[in-house]
Amino acid sequence: MTEVAPPLHAAGDPRRFSFAGAHRDAVYTAIHRRRDVRLFRDEPVDDAILARLLAAGHGAPSVGFMQPWTFMVVRSAETKARVKDLYLRERQAAACFFDEPRRSQYLGLKLEGICEAPVNICVTCDPTRAGNQVLGRNSQPETDVYSTCLAVQNIWLAARAEGLGVGWVSILKLGELRDILAIPPHVVPVAYLCVGWPVDLPPRPMLQDSGWRERLALRSVIRGERFDSQGDLPDEVLSQVEAEVAGWSDDRLI
Amino acid sequence: MTEVAPPLHAAGDPRRFSFAGAHRDAVYTAIHRRRDVRLFRDEPVDDAILARLLAAGHGAPSVGFMQPWTFMVVRSAETKARVKDLYLRERQAAACFFDEPRRSQYLGLKLEGICEAPVNICVTCDPTRAGNQVLGRNSQPETDVYSTCLAVQNIWLAARAEGLGVGWVSILKLGELRDILAIPPHVVPVAYLCVGWPVDLPPRPMLQDSGWRERLALRSVIRGERFDSQGDLPDEVLSQVEAEVAGWSDDRLI
Repeated sequence: MTEVAPPLHAAGDPRRFSFAGAHRDAVYTAIHRRRDVRLFRDEPVDDAILARLLAAGHGAPSVGFMQPWTFMVVRSAETKARVKDLYLRERQAAACFFDEPRRSQYLGLKLEGICEAPVNICVTCDPTRAGNQVLGRNSQPETDVYSTCLAVQNIWLAARAEGLGVGWVSILKLGELRDILAIPPHVVPVAYLCVGWPVDLPPRPMLQDSGWRERLALRSVIRGERFDSQGDLPDEVLSQVEAEVAGWSDDRLI
Repeated sequence: MTEVAPPLHAAGDPRRFSFAGAHRDAVYTAIHRRRDVRLFRDEPVDDAILARLLAAGHGAPSVGFMQPWTFMVVRSAETKARVKDLYLRERQAAACFFDEPRRSQYLGLKLEGICEAPVNICVTCDPTRAGNQVLGRNSQPETDVYSTCLAVQNIWLAARAEGLGVGWVSILKLGELRDILAIPPHVVPVAYLCVGWPVDLPPRPMLQDSGWRERLALRSVIRGERFDSQGDLPDEVLSQVEAEVAGWSDDRLI
């Protein structure tokens, strides 16, 4: 592997673990240019790249270092077709809860690429992985599933750096998905991911571009130490960062 | 912002969104050199850096693009002291479930840096953020909380690129935490993070170095498309990637 960044700061400098500018920006580019991808090309994904994605997932933080995740690699057309059928039923069921014109808009959206993506990954969580008593899980039992979500985001960002697209399909009934993949009752299917070479990686989320829902202002998701209080970050700083993020969403950056 | 990577591949090449080598490695370095930090220096964190971390969180994927997260910035010594007191009680309570010598080992571990970290961030999820009907949440209601976890990992990796440390404190009773931070009943506190300049960023997790628990082999967390089946990734590929990851955990890389 190449050396990423020479030391920028002296040993005693608090910033001594910071990445050099371009390398820091690479991380932000992965974060801000990542998309939920539903259109895939049919070229295969190399084993070495797939292994790097799974190793990135395995490198996630976990409560009590329990590493509760299992990554199930789905490749067969038959299994993908069964999952796709499950998606189609659930999509239709979910449509019942939307009123027109939202319902037609929902049914017109491309929300998965299960069969087109060369690889699907079902990311599961085994709450028994480290026994009953897990350090840090006593008061928040759900932290094992949370840890598994952190692994999903590692995979997603690693995929972005590799130029791969990832799409998370949540329009699936979990009981039926367990049956298709023979997942034991005590294991939680957390995420079903489609992975492959993307047809495109547009600057904005498809649900934003299609008018489904707007990006919220950064200011609106920041608070102070009481939930009803404003945060103390100055507006000009937040505006500056929002402008930077818009820059990262520019085609010049890839 | 600097340009991250010139195009490596022609427009028709499936790999055309991939980062150049050193930039890809920067993302992997953030992933594999990220640690759960509990020892912080007392230098403050610039507003601009903090804003970039929160913007990274806000850039996470979310089910139906609902963006359910709110980032509460906690800075006052008084509030941090109340959270620390909550931690100390819960730590003692959780210790009751470990037998010796595990109990003494648990009580001897430094598991938080609440008061030392200049900034704490409570990351919460508001399930009502996008109304009752959220695209993609019909069959998996927990995906709003999952989305919030993805935001946590974005913050964690952005912090790593900035040279900052993050520690997730899960040894807290959520009811009491709600009271301290005046979080409304319908909002879920997902993660309580300590953020600041790290005293150190060791190559391996503290719970690994202290002998609490081992890193699992990559092979052991990969399966095929049935949970009881082996994955088809060749052992030599997995070994190669594990060696690469060990390289990323080397001090040469930062």
